[in-house]
Order: sequence, then structure tokens, then C-alpha cells
Amino acid sequence: MIANSSTTIRFLLASRQCELNSLRYLLQRGELVGKISQLVHMLQRERGTSNMFLCAGEGQFADELSLRERDVAQAQAPLLAQLDTLESQIATSPQASRLFSHVASVIYALSLLPALRQQIRQRKLPLPQAMSFFNDIIRHLLSLVFELTDTAAEPDISRALIAMFSFMQGKEFAGQERAIAAAAFAAGQFSEETRLKLLDLIEHQERCFATFADFADEQHRLRWQQVQTDSQFERLRRIACTGREGFAADSGLRWFALATQRIDAMKQEEDTLAETLMAHCRARIAAAEQASHQQQADIESLMPQPEEEESRYSVFIDNHGWLESGGVRPQLGRSLLTLVQQQSRRLQALDTELAALRETLNERKQIERAKSLLMQHRQLSEEEAYKTLRSMAMNQNKKLVEIAGAMLAVADVFPLLPRE
Amino acid sequence: MIANSSTTIRFLLASRQCELNSLRYLLQRGELVGKISQLVHMLQRERGTSNMFLCAGEGQFADELSLRERDVAQAQAPLLAQLDTLESQIATSPQASRLFSHVASVIYALSLLPALRQQIRQRKLPLPQAMSFFNDIIRHLLSLVFELTDTAAEPDISRALIAMFSFMQGKEFAGQERAIAAAAFAAGQFSEETRLKLLDLIEHQERCFATFADFADEQHRLRWQQVQTDSQFERLRRIACTGREGFAADSGLRWFALATQRIDAMKQEEDTLAETLMAHCRARIAAAEQASHQQQADIESLMPQPEEEESRYSVFIDNHGWLESGGVRPQLGRSLLTLVQQQSRRLQALDTELAALRETLNERKQIERAKSLLMQHRQLSEEEAYKTLRSMAMNQNKKLVEIAGAMLAVADVFPLLPRE
Repeated sequence: MIANSSTTIRFLLASRQCELNSLRYLLQRGELVGKISQLVHMLQRERGTSNMFLCAGEGQFADELSLRERDVAQAQAPLLAQLDTLESQIATSPQASRLFSHVASVIYALSLLPALRQQIRQRKLPLPQAMSFFNDIIRHLLSLVFELTDTAAEPDISRALIAMFSFMQGKEFAGQERAIAAAAFAAGQFSEETRLKLLDLIEHQERCFATFADFADEQHRLRWQQVQTDSQFERLRRIACTGREGFAADSGLRWFALATQRIDAMKQEEDTLAETLMAHCRARIAAAEQASHQQQADIESLMPQPEEEESRYSVFIDNHGWLESGGVRPQLGRSLLTLVQQQSRRLQALDTELAALRETLNERKQIERAKSLLMQHRQLSEEEAYKTLRSMAMNQNKKLVEIAGAMLAVADVFPLLPRE
Repeated sequence: MIANSSTTIRFLLASRQCELNSLRYLLQRGELVGKISQLVHMLQRERGTSNMFLCAGEGQFADELSLRERDVAQAQAPLLAQLDTLESQIATSPQASRLFSHVASVIYALSLLPALRQQIRQRKLPLPQAMSFFNDIIRHLLSLVFELTDTAAEPDISRALIAMFSFMQGKEFAGQERAIAAAAFAAGQFSEETRLKLLDLIEHQERCFATFADFADEQHRLRWQQVQTDSQFERLRRIACTGREGFAADSGLRWFALATQRIDAMKQEEDTLAETLMAHCRARIAAAEQASHQQQADIESLMPQPEEEESRYSVFIDNHGWLESGGVRPQLGRSLLTLVQQQSRRLQALDTELAALRETLNERKQIERAKSLLMQHRQLSEEEAYKTLRSMAMNQNKKLVEIAGAMLAVADVFPLLPRE
């Protein structure tokens, strides 16, 4: 290989090609997120129904449960099929390694579903445990979405992915709220613990939807603001959270129906978000392909004739500190310089924007990790872990992310609790 | 594809494979950095010699110049050969796109060398311009090193790369100092401008070596501290920077020899750094291969027998919030869980450490970008740009990185100066 115009051009084209590839890859990952959203939705419903099944008398909800299982199977198949194609894309990036590790966790969690269902059917599993199994499977699926979000390289698309992820998280808290209250309505009472848990879940939803609003585009933010909460739903929610009023025997069914209506509306929003995301990706790919063709055309018109010796060009430095060649065929040198500069500046601008985004994201990730550290080592629930972090931050007058960072920094000295 | 133990294992293996690939890729990039270091070293020498050539009388240093050109050619060939193999590794990552864009800039800059040399030989180019051409080529090579540094995924290796990059930057400022002072000694006088420039270059060197010390391991830091500066070199440096004392006619040659000795010692350090980096990579690869074999062996001993139905396992949740399966063949479920968890935790720990490192790096990158923005749009030199940023930071009592960030945020409204 020698250092000349043709080699420069080869690498410019390679840079473009990588960009196009990474956009196409992004589109695939967007599709994957859409499929995960669908599976999560169905698992949420199965969780709610299985809670009702476990609380209600013999023979009730068994058919509904079968329907929900079928829906999950239907949503799971296309996801697994796409994950299967993913495996052939063994890459050299460390992100790929993390991605596959998350996929392994998801598959592992999903592989336990049949056993879980069997035990639910046989009523061998107490409700809180059955529910936390479902929560866990969904948590692994959402972690996979987060990992997919993390590696996006287009600021716009990355923002859309973060908005979508936050929305999915919010919807999951809504799903947990539905499942817990459905069980309590069915059981006929709300314990103090259940009520506090519900209040927590409502707060969590609001926080997630606030993050969604931070990252979503104007259009989706406005759409979401216009989604009215149903007044009947709010009344049942109040009953559930305060536990002061009595309620009719069919309140459980009504709650489940109304909460499902609400969550289905969320799913519709999620689908729109996924569509916008895909449209974004496709538009960017089309633009990049267009730019690539233009670049190709520019290059062909510029290619040096074989008889020209490049060393005959003279050199000078342009106003922006770049080398430039002139002389016998100045237009080649100058245009090539322009192409090299354009590519370099564009990628740099993208990278700067992404770095800022990544910082925001990184803060959220640190908080998530510190939370799961507390969950693991102190046997806390997600809510308790979050509250612990928050109260530490408030007491020390520090930001949540600072406390999370400090906690992760000292993670090694955390004593592991002995296994029971 | 179905969600079961075998599929879980497939993805665990894929995750491992990606990790190994990314380590091997890192080793390649380390080799690339070594080759760039060699080429930069030779270009620095050619720059010094061509400065002496341009200042001295007809017929002097012409042979030395030919030798330096030959050295550059010898260092350039293996680098270009490795870049050539790089091109076949078109990846889906956005980093790859940036990397190729940087390579294009490097190749473009190198392609102008023959024309540059011709004009130097014909004395058609004034010294400052000839020198800034060399500076520019080296700057592009160092940017490529920085890009290679940016994408490393192992915290230790990443730190070693940053240490090496900072050292290379420091050495480049030492090279510029050598070239400028050599020309001034040869010309017989030091202007006010030259003296200020030299003081700047000394300050820059110290800053780079301080960064090097921040990121290098103990061993290299201590080695570097023990490198004594030659007292004769320091005396000539003082003469150059103060301009008060007279100097002998052969001071230029002596300066060049002493500065070259110093820079060669730096190159030796750089070589040791590169060796350590490679050793790091190889050790990590060996460890990862070992772990991968171990994992494979564990998996083989665990694989379910075909007659066993996985859905016959029962499930329970472990103390750390993970799903676990037990029942007929509990050891499979539990061991698989352990494998999934190990992989996930290890990658997460790496990622957390890297995120912190990336933040530090990102701050430095922002400062570099803000500097080059000022250079481009305000026609400032690197030193002036840095000073502008620093004085803005001091006046507003802000950190340098905050000012840099603010500047990048408003980059679009910077008026481009009209081309002359």
C-alpha cells in the first residue's frame, strides 16, 4: 500500500461503509426492541392473570391463564428467532460481549417459564414468589433493551431509544401495580405493606415517564400528555392506596380491566415510539446511502489520471490548519481535502453530541447498578434500595449519582451475605 | 430456537468469543500504536534536519536529509501494511467509522510528503511553513493514536494506552522544541517570538508528562522520573529561552545532538511502554482463553442428557434476586445460573471501571476539540488556543472542561472566517 489519493479515498469509503453498517445494525436493534416490547407486554398480562388465578378459588382464571401463555409463546417466537440471527454477528467490540451476556440472561430466565407455570398451576408457589419470577424475567428483558440503547451511535436515535426504554420501564411499574392490586382486590384486603408498595410503584411510574418526556421528541411528549387517566381507574387506585373505603366484590375484575385498558394504551404509545424509531433509522440510512453515492460520484470525477504523478503537486496549508496540495492538478488535492475534512468533522460533531448523551445515560446506569448492588448484598427490594440511595444522598447533601458512584467504587468491600 | 439450557450456553459462549475477539483486536491496535510511534519518531527527526537544512548554507545537510527520508520510508512501510489489513475489518461499530476517517486523514497527510520534500529541497517553502507541514502530519498520526486509545475496552490496557498517548504527545512537543531551537541556533539568533514559543513548548511537555504519570503504572512512572536531564542540554535550553547569552557557532549542531539524545531516550521509554502494553494484551488474551476453556469444560460436564425434560425442573429464587431452577437435576440449573451470573457481573464491573475512565478521557477530548475549534475559526496557534481557553476558565472561575464544553455547545454559531 502507498500513501496517495487512491488510498485516501479507499479509507474514506471504508469509513462511510462502517457508518452505513452501523446504521443498519441500529435498525435491527430497533426491531429487536419492538419485539421485546411485545413479549414484555404479554408477560405482564400473564403475570396479572396468574396473580388473579392464585388468589381466586379453584377453577377460576385457568382458561384465561392458558390464553395468556399462548400469547407469550406467540410473542416469544419472533424474538428468539431474531436473537438467533444475532448470534452469527460475533463482533470484535466489547459491547457485543455485553450484549450476548444479556441475551444469555434473558434466555436463561425464559427457559424457566415452563417450570414456573407448572408450579403456579399446581399452586405450589406462593403468590409473591410467582410474581417476583415474572418481574425478574421482565427485568432481564428490560436490561437487554437498555444494553441495546447504550450502544447506539446516532444522537437522535439514541435519544429515541432512551425515551422508549424509559417508557417501557414506566409501563412495567404500571404492570406491577396492576398485578399487586389485582391480587389484593381478589383477596379482599389491602395490607399496609401492599399500600406502601403501590404508592412506590406510582412514584416510580411518574419518574420513568418524566425521563421519557426528557428524551422523547415534541410529538410523542404531547401525545402522552393528552392521554387522560380514567376517573374510574383513579377511584379504584385511591381505594387501593388508602385502604379506607370498602369495595364491591367485583372490584378486582373491574380494576384489572381498567388497569389493562390503561396499560394497553401505553402499549399503543410504545408501538408508536417503536415506529418512529424505525422511521428515524430508515431515514438516516437513506440519507447516508444518498451521501455515499454522492461521495462516490465526487470521487470518480476526481480520480487522478494514471499518467499524472502526484508528487508533482505543490503543497500549501489552508486557513484552517489543514495540509492542502495544489500545483498541476489543484482541484484534486483541494476536493480530496474537502472530502476528508467533511467526513472527519461530521463524525466529530456526532461524537461530541453522543458523549454528552452518554454521560447522562451513564449517570442513570450507575444509579441502576448501585441499586442492584444493594438489592443483592442487603437483600433489599428495588424500592428499598432506591430509597436507601436517596436518603443517603439527601443526608449528605449530594447528588444521587455521586452516592451511586461512591457505592460502586467500594463495591468490592461489601460483605456478601451468606447463602441460606 | 427455543429458550433452554443449550441456547443459554450458546450465548454465553458467544459473549466469551466476542470478548476474546475484542482483546485480539486490541493487541492489533497496540501493534499499530507501536508502528505509529516509530514513524512519528522518524518524521520528528526529518523535521529537525530539514529545519537545519533550510537555515544552513547551500550544500549542507542535504545528505542527512536523504538519510532521514529513507528512515521515514522504512518506518512508513510497515504502518501502511498494517493499515491495509485493517481495511478488511469493516465493522458495524461507529468507532470503526471514526477510525477509518482518521486513517484517511493520515494517508492524505502522508501522501503530501513527496511534494513537501521537493519544495524543501528547492528552498521554495519558508521554514515556518515547512515545519508546520511536518507538525500537521504528526498531529494526524497522534490523532489516530488517540482514536485507537478511545475504543479500548480493558481498563488496564486503556490506561496504558492513554499513558502512551500522553507520552507521545509530550515527545512531540520536545521534537518541536528541538526543531525550532535548532533553526534559531543555525540562524544565529532567537527572536522574542521564538523564545516565547520555546517556553510554551516546555510547558506543554511538562503537562503531557504529568498526564502520562497519572495513567502509567508505578514501574514506568518511576523509570521516567529517573531519566536525568543532561546539564549541557539544560544550559543550551536556557540560552535559547532567555536569549541573553551569546553562543558558539557550533551550538546548533550541539543542541541538535543533545536534544536528539534526549528524544531518543524518550523513544526508548516509549518502546518500553509499547512492550508493556503488548504484554498486557497477551496476558489478558491468555487468561481469557484459559477461562474460556474452563467454561467450555464446565459446560460439557453440565449439558443435560437428551432424555431429560427441562420443564420438569422446579424453580426458586436465590438470595441475590436471580431465578434459579432446581428439581430433577438441580446442579445443572444452579451451575448454569452461576455461569450466567459470573459473565454478567464480570462484564458489568469492567464496564463501570471503563465508564469512569471514559469520563476522564472525554474531558480531555473536549478540551482538545475546543482548542482545534479555536485554531480553525480564530486562526490561533495551538498554544494561543489553549491559553484562550485557560484564561476564559480562570476569569469565570470554571473548570477548563466546562469552558470547552460550552464552546463546543455553541460551535455552530461561530462565524467562519472567510477564505483568503
